[in-house]
Amino acid sequence: MPASPIRKLVPLGDEAKARGTHVYHLNIGQPDIETPPEFFDAVCSYREKVVAYGNSQGIRLFIESLQQYYASLSIPLNYDDIVITTGGSEAILFSMMAVAEPGDELLVFEPFYTNYNGFAIMAGIRLVPIATQAEDGFHLPPAEDIEASITPRTRGIIICNPNNPTGTVLRPDELYAVRDLALKHNLYVLSDEVYREFVYEGETQSVLSIDGLQEHAVVMDSLSKRYSLCGGRMGCVISRNRRFMDVMLRFGQARLCTATLEQVGAAALVAEGAKYFTPMISEYRRRRDATFEELQNIPGMLCRKPSGAFYIMAQFPVDDIEDFAAWMLRDFSENNETTMLAPGPGFYATRGRGTNEARLAYVLNAPECRRAVALVARGIEQYNSVNRKG
Amino acid sequence: MPASPIRKLVPLGDEAKARGTHVYHLNIGQPDIETPPEFFDAVCSYREKVVAYGNSQGIRLFIESLQQYYASLSIPLNYDDIVITTGGSEAILFSMMAVAEPGDELLVFEPFYTNYNGFAIMAGIRLVPIATQAEDGFHLPPAEDIEASITPRTRGIIICNPNNPTGTVLRPDELYAVRDLALKHNLYVLSDEVYREFVYEGETQSVLSIDGLQEHAVVMDSLSKRYSLCGGRMGCVISRNRRFMDVMLRFGQARLCTATLEQVGAAALVAEGAKYFTPMISEYRRRRDATFEELQNIPGMLCRKPSGAFYIMAQFPVDDIEDFAAWMLRDFSENNETTMLAPGPGFYATRGRGTNEARLAYVLNAPECRRAVALVARGIEQYNSVNRKG
Repeated sequence: MPASPIRKLVPLGDEAKARGTHVYHLNIGQPDIETPPEFFDAVCSYREKVVAYGNSQGIRLFIESLQQYYASLSIPLNYDDIVITTGGSEAILFSMMAVAEPGDELLVFEPFYTNYNGFAIMAGIRLVPIATQAEDGFHLPPAEDIEASITPRTRGIIICNPNNPTGTVLRPDELYAVRDLALKHNLYVLSDEVYREFVYEGETQSVLSIDGLQEHAVVMDSLSKRYSLCGGRMGCVISRNRRFMDVMLRFGQARLCTATLEQVGAAALVAEGAKYFTPMISEYRRRRDATFEELQNIPGMLCRKPSGAFYIMAQFPVDDIEDFAAWMLRDFSENNETTMLAPGPGFYATRGRGTNEARLAYVLNAPECRRAVALVARGIEQYNSVNRKG
Repeated sequence: MPASPIRKLVPLGDEAKARGTHVYHLNIGQPDIETPPEFFDAVCSYREKVVAYGNSQGIRLFIESLQQYYASLSIPLNYDDIVITTGGSEAILFSMMAVAEPGDELLVFEPFYTNYNGFAIMAGIRLVPIATQAEDGFHLPPAEDIEASITPRTRGIIICNPNNPTGTVLRPDELYAVRDLALKHNLYVLSDEVYREFVYEGETQSVLSIDGLQEHAVVMDSLSKRYSLCGGRMGCVISRNRRFMDVMLRFGQARLCTATLEQVGAAALVAEGAKYFTPMISEYRRRRDATFEELQNIPGMLCRKPSGAFYIMAQFPVDDIEDFAAWMLRDFSENNETTMLAPGPGFYATRGRGTNEARLAYVLNAPECRRAVALVARGIEQYNSVNRKG
């Protein structure tokens, strides 16, 4: 079981702070946006005397509010198409375990959300990585390249749309290619859609609204980003496949239920609908534009402007990104400030890939994002001149 | 993945209620005791604007309060000996996955907490059941009988002390026998101690305080029962084995963190210490005595008076307990009242065992427990006379 690569730099960051250096955290997807007050209001108006076990599927109030939310996206769902989970994390772990036995395989596009690895290890499942390239904006390779990785043990294809860590939003033709492969080889499509609202150009599509995928589509969702509720651990799994959902409910029964108060609070947010994320998305667009513009100014930096989520995966003009990221915290500062990055290799299963890439999470306001990237620019300059001398 | 056997009767219970019948729930370990108001107070005095990701190990306030609590039990713990989990459920799942690979084996004493099965299936681990007998008060068999089940794939021994579903509290000699086997065969001892305070005669001992088990003892704990906080999903894993705790922390990192608000609330309870459970234990002793006394009055009913938890596992004078439990909900009522039981087979991995046993959770006040068992007595009479005629 590997240590979380995103969190591996944490001690160096802590030491920098102890020296009085301000650290801009572009390394972790923790938004600075305030959690809507309706969440706290609902939690604190809970009037039961006992915080009792809830239904394993989730509390009715919350499930119905999610039905409403999905209906507003033109995705009609039955009550039993939804099981509440402890964050997107449990949604991913349970979905993987439900579709694959130990030793089975799931296809995943590299780079990918680093914790897929951890969950696969827990479940004894083999993740089979399929490369995507910075030069192509991390879009999917041709269908035949994907198909070449399918074996008799393949049970599903994992997509993350909009993508963490690349920010890429899948085009309809890519989704249809995945659909066709899933139907041809009878595979599940496990779709991580926690960044659904974070789309800055064009539109994204849920696998739940793709014709023909009724029995194959599984959505792993979370309220963490949409409502800035990361510490609330509220997510869900959605599928119209009854056999899959039966297993999901049994997993749910094994762990009894998810936190009651947090569900009550979350229900209040979902009921309020889009009023939170419409202004939030404008704010994130500004941040993306600021971050991307500053990155463009760095000689040798390669990245395409991503259309979604709140991440940019960039190719850096350095040889060893892990060394550079550590150096930024240990040896670099300008006016007592530095920037923390998430090194690329953590997002790859294939050894040797991502060694000059890093993920930047633009979860600070636009001026702070600019400053954080300007620090990266200064850092690269110094780091490379020191390195060349050495 | 089996459906939760305890929850399988739920639709029949719901139908009985829809007919206007009051159902006494002796089937599920949901106490009626009020959650201490300090929990709600602490949750509602949370003043951060963002419900952000917390530390994967848990929030400092909560971990330190647990250190204090364990110190009060004469169990000194380092800060890093504790990882907070989403309920005892996650503590059990993570502990199993940390000590065993898919295909490995864990010994478990039958009857056992039914969800161990579910977690083992999720993790691809084989549970090897070792029988205990109602006649012996479900105490452990001789060491050589346990040893006979150890194979090269055995990784640990699971104990639950005080026990769910039997209420049995392990004697020191039993714990030492388990210790000696663990040391001889280099096995983990995974000890589920969520009912630690629920002891009515004598004393229980944590595996954390048994000499020589430093590297072998793992405690899976939960606040659910101790503070009537089942829906709070607050638990922890405790061990002094550094390699084990490293894995535990990595599992924790994969799922990021547990719910922030619930941790803040839970910390307030743990800090208050024993003031909640001392009166609660007296109340449960009254309930146990009432339940046991009424059971004694039923001809042909076999059970020993258990010393802990809030369960009694009794052998019923019926041939098929699952049929009887369903019949109680479907076909029986007296003054519009009936009783719901948890059928024995759900607590056994060995097919054919527990078919005339049921678990009674005395989570109602003493007069209600008496009435609920009196209904069972009337039910048995009618059921057996109907059955004999048929």
